[in-house]
Amino acid sequence: MSKLLDNVTGELQRLPGIGRRTALRLAMHILKMETSTVDSLAASIASFRHDIRYCRSCNNLSDGDLCPICTDPRRDRSTICVVEQVADLMSIENTAQYHGVYHVLGGVISPMQGIGPSDLKIDLLCDKLTAGGIREVIIAISTSVEGETTLFYLLNRLKAFPEVKVTTIARGIGFGDELEYVDELTITHALMNRREVER
Amino acid sequence: MSKLLDNVTGELQRLPGIGRRTALRLAMHILKMETSTVDSLAASIASFRHDIRYCRSCNNLSDGDLCPICTDPRRDRSTICVVEQVADLMSIENTAQYHGVYHVLGGVISPMQGIGPSDLKIDLLCDKLTAGGIREVIIAISTSVEGETTLFYLLNRLKAFPEVKVTTIARGIGFGDELEYVDELTITHALMNRREVER
Repeated sequence: MSKLLDNVTGELQRLPGIGRRTALRLAMHILKMETSTVDSLAASIASFRHDIRYCRSCNNLSDGDLCPICTDPRRDRSTICVVEQVADLMSIENTAQYHGVYHVLGGVISPMQGIGPSDLKIDLLCDKLTAGGIREVIIAISTSVEGETTLFYLLNRLKAFPEVKVTTIARGIGFGDELEYVDELTITHALMNRREVER
Repeated sequence: MSKLLDNVTGELQRLPGIGRRTALRLAMHILKMETSTVDSLAASIASFRHDIRYCRSCNNLSDGDLCPICTDPRRDRSTICVVEQVADLMSIENTAQYHGVYHVLGGVISPMQGIGPSDLKIDLLCDKLTAGGIREVIIAISTSVEGETTLFYLLNRLKAFPEVKVTTIARGIGFGDELEYVDELTITHALMNRREVER
């Protein structure tokens, strides 16, 4: 087999969800693409890895010192939404319903994976709260064991700022979810947090 | 959103089967990879597109003038298996049961897509047959309308070489296929080509 083909399929298989067959299919497609398109693909991958930076204020991915959200004058800087990772921030941004700023922890506390509180950007968050001007911190981290551990630790640290309101996003039955297949914990939360309907 | 991230996800989405979400997941994974690994990924993609060549004899992908199969002294050069594309050649190679050489047409005749016989490497095949020394041509192209058209055209061209045996691969029920779900044409072929069982 061609060494060039071996190389490219081998390298592509390092990416998640790409097996031997998919790598081969991608390689065959790459052959049909314009050379210039393939060059920009390769260049964008390398430059993304080399040049990407993390926002000095919120730890979001950024091209410069501060990310576009932190520098946007229309965003409400008094509300901070704390998320695990950049992908979560993007999911919230896609709703176009949130106008505050973010804080990306960069993971959750996981003793199993050797990730402790000091590996997350928690001090950076506390520094912002110390600087003042923050009204509310919305915690939007997952309800996994690690997420709950992180929540617990965060709430403890946030006790130092009693003037700041701390909230978590609502847990409940998702739109389109069938009650029959929803887990007990979610149903319990959804029942406890039931809302009176206007008549 | 970061322009670097926008670029890389946009470029990745040009690949088949990669949508916005997958592109984002790949980008996030790329961030966690070693810089040197990302560099080899990018370099292998670009160099595959720039440096790959097609075997002068069989049209297989190749690093040089002739592909590894055509230069392998252990291959039987008197038997040629004709396939549509390189991926088909690889599927056959994976069985490790075929010891002849190949001929990659580079597609099938498709008037709808503007692909005529002259766009395929059919003349190259006839040149090889004219040169002599070929005992058998095995045609292993798909049974689509385009495949059948190509088969018909090929058989016509091969009439010029009556000394060469021409065969097609067997059609039948695949291992693991359930008869209930197999199409009528395949079942008809499988019935017609039934084999007597040794008792």
